[in-house]
Amino acid sequence: MPHAFAGVMPYLVSPVDADGQVMETVLANLCEHLIASGVHGLVPLGSTGEFAYLNAAQRQRVVEVVIAAAAGRVPVIAGVAASTTADAVAQTRAYARAGVDGILAILEAYFPLTEAQIEVYFTAIAGASDLPVVLYTNPNFQRADLSLRSIERLAAIETIGYIKDASTNTGRLLSIMNAVGGRMRVFSASAHIPACVMLIGGVGWMAGPACVVPKPSLELYSLCRAGLWGEAMVLQRRLWAVNEMFARHNLAACIKAGLESQGFAVGNPLPPQSPLGAAARAEVAAALRDANAA
Amino acid sequence: MPHAFAGVMPYLVSPVDADGQVMETVLANLCEHLIASGVHGLVPLGSTGEFAYLNAAQRQRVVEVVIAAAAGRVPVIAGVAASTTADAVAQTRAYARAGVDGILAILEAYFPLTEAQIEVYFTAIAGASDLPVVLYTNPNFQRADLSLRSIERLAAIETIGYIKDASTNTGRLLSIMNAVGGRMRVFSASAHIPACVMLIGGVGWMAGPACVVPKPSLELYSLCRAGLWGEAMVLQRRLWAVNEMFARHNLAACIKAGLESQGFAVGNPLPPQSPLGAAARAEVAAALRDANAA
Amino acid sequence: MPHAFAGVMPYLVSPVDADGQVMETVLANLCEHLIASGVHGLVPLGSTGEFAYLNAAQRQRVVEVVIAAAAGRVPVIAGVAASTTADAVAQTRAYARAGVDGILAILEAYFPLTEAQIEVYFTAIAGASDLPVVLYTNPNFQRADLSLRSIERLAAIETIGYIKDASTNTGRLLSIMNAVGGRMRVFSASAHIPACVMLIGGVGWMAGPACVVPKPSLELYSLCRAGLWGEAMVLQRRLWAVNEMFARHNLAACIKAGLESQGFAVGNPLPPQSPLGAAARAEVAAALRDANAA
Amino acid sequence: MPHAFAGVMPYLVSPVDADGQVMETVLANLCEHLIASGVHGLVPLGSTGEFAYLNAAQRQRVVEVVIAAAAGRVPVIAGVAASTTADAVAQTRAYARAGVDGILAILEAYFPLTEAQIEVYFTAIAGASDLPVVLYTNPNFQRADLSLRSIERLAAIETIGYIKDASTNTGRLLSIMNAVGGRMRVFSASAHIPACVMLIGGVGWMAGPACVVPKPSLELYSLCRAGLWGEAMVLQRRLWAVNEMFARHNLAACIKAGLESQGFAVGNPLPPQSPLGAAARAEVAAALRDANAA
Repeated sequence: MPHAFAGVMPYLVSPVDADGQVMETVLANLCEHLIASGVHGLVPLGSTGEFAYLNAAQRQRVVEVVIAAAAGRVPVIAGVAASTTADAVAQTRAYARAGVDGILAILEAYFPLTEAQIEVYFTAIAGASDLPVVLYTNPNFQRADLSLRSIERLAAIETIGYIKDASTNTGRLLSIMNAVGGRMRVFSASAHIPACVMLIGGVGWMAGPACVVPKPSLELYSLCRAGLWGEAMVLQRRLWAVNEMFARHNLAACIKAGLESQGFAVGNPLPPQSPLGAAARAEVAAALRDANAA
Repeated sequence: MPHAFAGVMPYLVSPVDADGQVMETVLANLCEHLIASGVHGLVPLGSTGEFAYLNAAQRQRVVEVVIAAAAGRVPVIAGVAASTTADAVAQTRAYARAGVDGILAILEAYFPLTEAQIEVYFTAIAGASDLPVVLYTNPNFQRADLSLRSIERLAAIETIGYIKDASTNTGRLLSIMNAVGGRMRVFSASAHIPACVMLIGGVGWMAGPACVVPKPSLELYSLCRAGLWGEAMVLQRRLWAVNEMFARHNLAACIKAGLESQGFAVGNPLPPQSPLGAAARAEVAAALRDANAA
Repeated sequence: MPHAFAGVMPYLVSPVDADGQVMETVLANLCEHLIASGVHGLVPLGSTGEFAYLNAAQRQRVVEVVIAAAAGRVPVIAGVAASTTADAVAQTRAYARAGVDGILAILEAYFPLTEAQIEVYFTAIAGASDLPVVLYTNPNFQRADLSLRSIERLAAIETIGYIKDASTNTGRLLSIMNAVGGRMRVFSASAHIPACVMLIGGVGWMAGPACVVPKPSLELYSLCRAGLWGEAMVLQRRLWAVNEMFARHNLAACIKAGLESQGFAVGNPLPPQSPLGAAARAEVAAALRDANAA
Repeated sequence: MPHAFAGVMPYLVSPVDADGQVMETVLANLCEHLIASGVHGLVPLGSTGEFAYLNAAQRQRVVEVVIAAAAGRVPVIAGVAASTTADAVAQTRAYARAGVDGILAILEAYFPLTEAQIEVYFTAIAGASDLPVVLYTNPNFQRADLSLRSIERLAAIETIGYIKDASTNTGRLLSIMNAVGGRMRVFSASAHIPACVMLIGGVGWMAGPACVVPKPSLELYSLCRAGLWGEAMVLQRRLWAVNEMFARHNLAACIKAGLESQGFAVGNPLPPQSPLGAAARAEVAAALRDANAA
């Protein structure tokens, strides 16, 4: 069933120990827990997964562990992030061989790039396998953004079927939908209000917080799908409070601290990022208890 | 009926002739047309009203003409915009004497200001009359933005009952609502998707485009109020296309060109702003015909 | 004496009392003191002069007082700042009639402008009188910047003979000099190191701090003119420490506090700007004593 | 000869073929040519060296080739760039073992970092070897900038003896010098005017363009050192025209095209970066002939 990504897809954290080893058991346990909670897919190596802090071997191991843990029950969409086309193609092929179901395509620019150069990069990823591709753009952290014109042109490539825009500009998502019609489906990010993105025609969300609030996230998704917008907003408001708390800290540190409070020993973000302090940890744990009790 | 602003409130253009005279008849006619169309209020001297390009006498005259035209049928909320507290207080008092029903409070900063200095400014406006105040913040054009903490503190002032945030960040609106609860009501701006803002708890929108698409704007508002979100989105999508077209040009030039195509001889934006060229005018006129025919 | 502006030209503060009246005596005294110190010109209504906070009558009065105080001994170059072409032309004509020797042309944009629109504005100022014009550009505070191409085109207008660029990018000044050759002379701003701008071919500086350190500023200018770069840098370093201190606060507040410490009762910046607190005032006074004792 | 870096230090390009292999011969030839031209040191893996586009093996090989080519005649200062402290420490140790004479320390941030976290990163690099360290900061391309306070604190570490700031703000360099006194020496970057940085107390420059204009760069350095500022500026102006031309394109593409025109077959920048087109190549070649003929 190709081209059927939809729903709540947590960005997984990448648990790495002090020696740089991927902590495989806890990562597999987290995948098991999320699948048991009902998530619609797993996304290793997004921003929350600290792709920007991992080397090639660590990334590959993370992807393999998640594929093995998912065991075909839900799709695994792995982040490919590179500054060169060659590296992006190599990652795509390696993850395809390892068995992922889709590619989340991220461009790590250094020098400024033209629209044409940016399109070359994403086109190369699409051509490196026959997997469905989700375009990722985040003007806050990436130094190259996808223009609406580039998105329109890339939508002509058959396997590029999705986009996740992590700007805070929800109107841009509606403009993307207006421009690419049925050719590309749109996922929400943490920076958008998922209920709003669902209202305007989104198909779900890929986001770190879903790791620590999977059940209420899935309930929110069901309410949106059923068109029960009033009930959805009651729940959305409570989940937004979790997002707001996370926005005050490093995102990976928050999700890792939250998972630790829920019994998953995923450790700390990679230095020089810092773990949350005790007060912030307690605050996160309490907020997650409230949100999950809802 | 204090504290009851809600619904579709067009930002009026300011028709000014080549000699700098406010063109009173066309402005009054526009007000009459919008009231006849059913708008819930009129807002002279917003961004669309080119407050940044008018002198004190022109601003005063615009406000007086709108008040006379409204004749008490809908509330008139006038923009107060200044770089000094003294000027803002003087404008507020003058517009209150002239008979406005509310103040849209805008800060035109030059040198950077602290949160405390910004709050002094808005507090002084609130203290200058007993009219309801709508805070306005637009990080794209103003050089001072209202932090969430400042908004929370200003919400403690009884007459500050509304906020219009013209960032593109809809999540920020939800955070404002979460923070100030029932004490402050939130209006959408053109940069947000009004249906989304209504979904999350907004009370309406203040925006320039409502001048040229009043009927479908009011229908959209009604659908949102009735909770008919599916129908609302069909209409919202079509109205968003109008917004997208406007975003490619100077906003005042677009609204003025659109009104000209609808028979209101409001003239051009003040130089060095340019009027739209013939091709853009035709495009705007056609888009408005489509949107209003819907 | 056309086209002969050069040297140290202090940006004057605008002393305004709590009732909004220009304090004429202290402003005249300050002009007298600076002329006696040897400055090469006086510049009312720059950033330091709080042009963005004064109304038309206050600006006009400031200009008149400075012209009367200068009494033809040094040129007076008045800031013209507006968002509309019409207002800029009116200001230019009014100041020309009042007897200024040059115009410092500032554009206060609100909506974004094209290069062509920006050039229309400055061209109109040049055409409004036969006075020499100094282009002013400050990407930190103005919302419209002058591109190198616009500067080249404006340099073709005979009366536009100078530019003051208040970016922090000194390389841009050298590019301007390379592009416009002998047709436009370049002044340094506070954000640049004056000795460096003199080294690359600048003709002097227009800056607020020269109000409070006129003597060492003039000595620095003389050393640069004499090519005594080693001695110049010893003095430049000490003066830079004054600049650094000012950069930590509101500029008008610093210069006004410094002048108060030197016996000029110029008062405070216009609210919502705040005056410096007691500690910062003491720090400013001490730094100025050191710099002037040098 | 510890702590004696000074003079003209070209940022070397990284010649890599289509298979990702470092082209060792041409890199060695370039080093030989630059040393024969009289440069004071060689800096592989700066921005111009495309560190952001190379994997660990490619970086290591570039460093080894440069060390072998330099053969102890001039110091080799290698760029260490990482997002994690562990990777930076590993790179530093590997390059130290390979025989470099100094480390150019670059932080590639993704999520925002606090001052303390940034200092941890640079402190770890300093502690990973006993080599002299040059701090590198570039607010245009790096997502973490070094504050003046962080620089002051890092200057207390004995081996951190230099800084290269690639902002365009020359005043910031003077502030750094004022703050860290004799404890840290300052190099200019391409974005600053080297003659200005020398005037205020800099010790030389690290920059890509020195690869293609080594002779006039060295002459400029000699004139600055001799205090012949007038002659220096004549030459500086001509070299600045080269910089301006490069600023219109991708920097690595320009330097590589320039070297190709001088007989060094260094190839193209790594895709999705593009090589210069034929017209731009001709323009670069001509400009370099002019500059080198001077």
